[in-house]
Amino acid sequence: MKLVFLGTSAAQPTARRALSCTCLERNGEIFVFDAGEAAQVSYMKAGLGWNKKMRIFITHMHGDHCVGLFGLLQTMSMRKRTEPLEIFGPAGIDEFVAANTRMLNFGLSFPVMISVVSEGRIYEDGEVVIDACRANHKVTAFSYRIIEKDRPGRFDVKKAGALDIPKVLWSRLQNGEEVVVNGKKTSPGEVLGERRPGKKIGISGDTAPTESLKEFFAGCDILVFDATFLDSEESKAQETLHSTARQAAMLAKKAGVKSLVLTHFSSRYKDESGHLREAREVFDSVTAARDLLEMEIR
Amino acid sequence: MKLVFLGTSAAQPTARRALSCTCLERNGEIFVFDAGEAAQVSYMKAGLGWNKKMRIFITHMHGDHCVGLFGLLQTMSMRKRTEPLEIFGPAGIDEFVAANTRMLNFGLSFPVMISVVSEGRIYEDGEVVIDACRANHKVTAFSYRIIEKDRPGRFDVKKAGALDIPKVLWSRLQNGEEVVVNGKKTSPGEVLGERRPGKKIGISGDTAPTESLKEFFAGCDILVFDATFLDSEESKAQETLHSTARQAAMLAKKAGVKSLVLTHFSSRYKDESGHLREAREVFDSVTAARDLLEMEIR
Repeated sequence: MKLVFLGTSAAQPTARRALSCTCLERNGEIFVFDAGEAAQVSYMKAGLGWNKKMRIFITHMHGDHCVGLFGLLQTMSMRKRTEPLEIFGPAGIDEFVAANTRMLNFGLSFPVMISVVSEGRIYEDGEVVIDACRANHKVTAFSYRIIEKDRPGRFDVKKAGALDIPKVLWSRLQNGEEVVVNGKKTSPGEVLGERRPGKKIGISGDTAPTESLKEFFAGCDILVFDATFLDSEESKAQETLHSTARQAAMLAKKAGVKSLVLTHFSSRYKDESGHLREAREVFDSVTAARDLLEMEIR
Repeated sequence: MKLVFLGTSAAQPTARRALSCTCLERNGEIFVFDAGEAAQVSYMKAGLGWNKKMRIFITHMHGDHCVGLFGLLQTMSMRKRTEPLEIFGPAGIDEFVAANTRMLNFGLSFPVMISVVSEGRIYEDGEVVIDACRANHKVTAFSYRIIEKDRPGRFDVKKAGALDIPKVLWSRLQNGEEVVVNGKKTSPGEVLGERRPGKKIGISGDTAPTESLKEFFAGCDILVFDATFLDSEESKAQETLHSTARQAAMLAKKAGVKSLVLTHFSSRYKDESGHLREAREVFDSVTAARDLLEMEIR
């Protein structure tokens, strides 16, 4: 599983940073969080593949977070994508996609489903769940978290052999069932290693820090958080309902996350050194995202 | 006056080429032809200025030619633009701008006027006129030409002095009127140099070559023309209603233009060397546009 940052600038792009887009690649599937203008250009550069299973999660209906949808949809159609694609977002996402698909006169080579998000569980399959939580921004906005389901421990073939358990019964032990061989019970715990816990990744989108987000992101392995401003612009952060790097770090610390990634930097800053310095004053494990940064999650 | 190419790729962007956008800068005013996705990024790199007088001309309602409008409008608003801006385009441009401004929840810091284009003269001021002509593409599409009005010849101060014409009468001669001093007539031709003809610039947008475009672009000083394909993809050009580089050159030759600039290259080609070679087989003065190319027009 890896995070790939496709756009890390706030509001206005810079020569080095495109507008918001963060991808999580997991088992050949892409979870895209926001699609700012020109997301397709970074997506192409990252070489993530045009016909992959994909779900797109829009945090809020501001242009710098969703205008890139059309370039992605159009280019995937021109490249003859066949895989269905699902787009999640706040109310308005449905009209936005439908109206522009009509007004821009383009056909789609693949099915697109739109799901309007409200708080709570918005997606679940056999391996992950995705939840939404209201963020605090100028328009309706959601933060998302993706949680891998725990996997059972590794099956110990040697132990199973020593216990004379026939192969045909192994899958039952792997699935957590007890088996009986020649009148002797074996419990799954005797042949399985420790349960492998899933990872938990948080994506804030644009938001001021809130108590409910602290709860929502509690225990995340990686939290990607709005760090638009420095301390010196804290009043600007408050006014525009964004966060400072320090506020992101304080929330990460209180939420007990393992690692924090700052993103969504205002174009007024030449680099992110100030953000890193201020965040590290309150929390140790901080990284600054940059366009095309890839981060393996193990 | 100069042309600045901000995006020269067809349909899909590449790592080197952004989507369609061509600017003409003239006396501090910017005429923008199409605004493909991420036009604002190239615009920023070109340093053309966010509060300049600006008119935007959309050739047709395909995403790769107009999705960049919103980034431009939004960034100009964030930069507190005050100058009004006028957008011209085919029917649908009005709904497209109005609906997205609403759906994307952004306010504008400056007035935006929308004009739906039909064939003929669409704009005139004291210095230029702009005309539209139907192009031949999958959806309603227009080509544009911008024509500078001729300027009178330069006033020859020495000659006027030798003829004892008082300064107060100079402007009448400059405006083409005869003056009489001490009973002696002086005609404008005696003190003015040769009339300075205005330049004529053509912008095709997406189109197959047509007879009416040949007429429309007759005598252009510079013609910027669709050269999506090479000879080897001529049937593809016909099917998608684009032009090959050779077709662009043939039209330029028949229209008697002085200089041809090829643009809108399909992303399938690694570079534009093939386009230049095939176009130069039929027409001498051919350039291939590239992103951020600036071309002075004298």
